[in-house]
Formats: sequence, structure tokens, C-alpha cells
Amino acid sequence: MLKQRHKITVSYDGTAYAGWQVQPNALAVQEVIETALSNLSEARVRVHGSGRTDQGVHAAGQVAHFDATLKVPVGKLPLVLNNMLPADIRIVSARKVSQDFHARRSAVSKEYRYFIWNRPLMDPFKRLYRAHIRQPLDLKAMRKAAALFTGMHDFSAFSSASTKIQETYVREIFSIVIREDDGDICIKVKGGGFLYKMVRSIAGYLIRVGLGEVPPESVAQIIKSRKRTAQVPTASPSGLFLWQVRY
Amino acid sequence: MLKQRHKITVSYDGTAYAGWQVQPNALAVQEVIETALSNLSEARVRVHGSGRTDQGVHAAGQVAHFDATLKVPVGKLPLVLNNMLPADIRIVSARKVSQDFHARRSAVSKEYRYFIWNRPLMDPFKRLYRAHIRQPLDLKAMRKAAALFTGMHDFSAFSSASTKIQETYVREIFSIVIREDDGDICIKVKGGGFLYKMVRSIAGYLIRVGLGEVPPESVAQIIKSRKRTAQVPTASPSGLFLWQVRY
Repeated sequence: MLKQRHKITVSYDGTAYAGWQVQPNALAVQEVIETALSNLSEARVRVHGSGRTDQGVHAAGQVAHFDATLKVPVGKLPLVLNNMLPADIRIVSARKVSQDFHARRSAVSKEYRYFIWNRPLMDPFKRLYRAHIRQPLDLKAMRKAAALFTGMHDFSAFSSASTKIQETYVREIFSIVIREDDGDICIKVKGGGFLYKMVRSIAGYLIRVGLGEVPPESVAQIIKSRKRTAQVPTASPSGLFLWQVRY
Repeated sequence: MLKQRHKITVSYDGTAYAGWQVQPNALAVQEVIETALSNLSEARVRVHGSGRTDQGVHAAGQVAHFDATLKVPVGKLPLVLNNMLPADIRIVSARKVSQDFHARRSAVSKEYRYFIWNRPLMDPFKRLYRAHIRQPLDLKAMRKAAALFTGMHDFSAFSSASTKIQETYVREIFSIVIREDDGDICIKVKGGGFLYKMVRSIAGYLIRVGLGEVPPESVAQIIKSRKRTAQVPTASPSGLFLWQVRY
């Protein structure tokens, strides 16, 4: 019998995990969900995410698919799974999908949000969910720089140096919107797809712009260089949330 | 030489601690601060809080005093201490005070806030800082009940059964205000002083009212009974914040 394909939306606090993807000698979110799901199925279940998130990175709306014949109806799946999972991983929703749905390949766009606590003193209740920048950031300069990231570009200069050889480093960013609310800054990045560590690299450079270390206009040159250098720091994982995946 | 009295305001995430007060075989917030302060003084420093908070209870604005001759100027104390303290404890401010200031005895009022996440699914990013009530709470009934707590009452029925013999169980509650914002409920309780576990007991009973288990009017009878019974549950510590102490 053909196993049924399922789509799940998952929210998790990444603090305690080595990231989304299964890795040797470290606990991954994917693995914890696979173990819970395997208890509800005859065979071991493999879960496929829309993309990996790094150690300490969070997700409000990670999406994954898996094939399984489950012992519980799909309507009860979030409740049953959430009773088995640790409190830092929550299944937001679950439904059956057709065999051609693929969490990574079917995604048409993704939204990430990068949060910065921009006050001299870190709020202890936000410490796990924000980057901390003590000096006041120049939001006007950051917004000017952000506009230069939007559109279709080769983002080699903003991907991880350790990225495996890819077919292309061209990605499209639809929009970057920066909001501030009483010291809490949120950088919303929407795009068609992202390279490894791309959002944290963009956030890292936007922070440099906000600190006045580099002018907003420099974004254009850095993109054009197509070379990742120490000019572009990778911002702290605790500020990053995979917010939403659209299909 | 007489040691200088200092007043500090402290914010802490209580999740990892056995509470504010030093206890055998468990790590307390007070102890962690005393150890840091003792590194800045010739003699061991004893810290006196405005009151204890239980295991898992948080503080946005706990206040404490201590006597010490410090090696650093008081203006630098928050910065220096915060560099030594773990990220879940932050010194918000520090200043010199006269010898007659006492963190507990000089307090004229206190504000606690009790937070409830009132949605079927717990938000993993709020799990450490909220009580979780799945069923929708009747805020109108809760507000009606809250009004009956205000004023001067003998709160024996809403203090811990294990409270040591006290001179009096009479306390004054100035106000209880209940706000709701997209599933996030906040119960703000201001009063002249509080008995052990009093706010969590009031919150626990307000939740019962909100669930329709008991009518709002029953608050008056329970107060009048002056007996703590199983009628009054103690709400989860994770929802409670010592918010502000006034002098």
C-alpha cells in the first residue's frame, strides 16, 4: 500500500537543538519529530523540511512533509504529537497532501524575520530570541541599504563560505521591511529562496550599516564582488526566525 | 568604616533557579548576585530582597539592598555586575541609599503581573513565561471576581497552607486589572503587601472563575472563610512576574 504524504507546520525554539537537520552526535529538531512520528507508524518515518535552520535558529512556521501510514487520523495528529514532543517543539497543523507535494521543492516563497534588541541592557526574557546591539542603530541608513538587496542578484557575497558548490547563487529577494517598536527591531525578509546563512549575512551587514561602520550604498559593490569576505559578518543565530513558507 | 548601603533593581528569568532566596542544595538568584558582588568587595556581601520569589517565578523589577565597600563606583556597578552574571539575571540599576532604606520594610507597594496564554496551542517562545489555559476564559466574569479582591481583607484563604504563623493575614489590594491582547492575558495586581503564594492563589481562583467552574460572587465567601482549601489552586509559577516595587 502506498503511504500517505502529509504536510506539517512546525514551530520551535531552536535554543536547545543543533538545528533542524539530523546530524551525528547532536540532537536535531527533525530527529525529535521523526522519533515521535515513528511511534505512530509501523515503519520508521523520515521527515523532509522546507530547508534547514542552524543551531540556535528558531522557526515560527517551518514546513515539512513525510510519507507514512499513521495509526491516528490526521485531524488528531497535532494534539497527539504535541503530547509526545518536548514543549519547545509544537506541531501547529497537519494535513494530507498529494504525492507531488515537496516541502522544499514546492515552496514558492519564504519569509524570515531577524530580531534585534537595540537597548544598552539586554532584556533577560528576550535573550534567547534576539540579537543584542547596544549602540543605537540608524534605521534610515539600514532601510536604504535594505532596498539595495531587493530584486534578483547573485548573493555569493552573502552566503556562507562553507556553502557546497551550487548550480547558482542567484536568488530573488521580494522585500525587506524594517520595523522598530520601543527598542525591538524586526527585519522582515521575503524571497523566492535563500542560500545557506544568507539572511544572517544580510542582517549582519545591515547591522554594520546601522552602526555607521559602512555606508548603505556599499551594499551594491559587495553584491557585485560575488566574494564572501570578513566585511560581511554572520549575525547571531538567536535573532533569526524562519517565519513562513508559502506554496 | 561603615559600609555603604546600596539599592539594586534586578530583572531575572526564574526558569533555571530555585527561587530568589538562598536554599540548601539549590541555586538561588540571591546567591548568584551575592557571589558576583563579593568579588567586588573585601568581605562577603549579603543581599536582602524586597521579598522572595518561588522556583520558576520571574522578576522584571525585584529590588534588593546590601551593605558593602565596593571596588567599583556605583555608576559602573550594573555594567560590571552584568559582565559577571549569567544572561538570565540582569542588574537594571544601582544607587547608594541611606542606612535606613530596607528593600522589604521600606516598600510601600508592589505590583505583580500574572500572564496566561489562552489559546489551544502553546507558543513555544512563551512557554517559560506564561501559564497555559486551553479553554477560552470568560474575562467579564474574571473582572467581576477581581473587583471583589480589592480592598483590605484577611487573605488567609489565598495564602499558602505552609505559610509560617504570621502576625496578620490582612493585606490591602489596591487594584486588579485584566487585559487581553490576541490570546495573551495579563492580570496586574497592585497592593500594599502580599502573603506567600497569594498572587498565584488569586490567579488560580480567577482562572477557575474564567473557566466557569465557580461564580465570580464566590470570591467574597472564600475570603470570609479564612481557610485555604482545594477550592483555591495555586497557578503555575511560570506565569508570575514580580513587576515593580515602590518606595
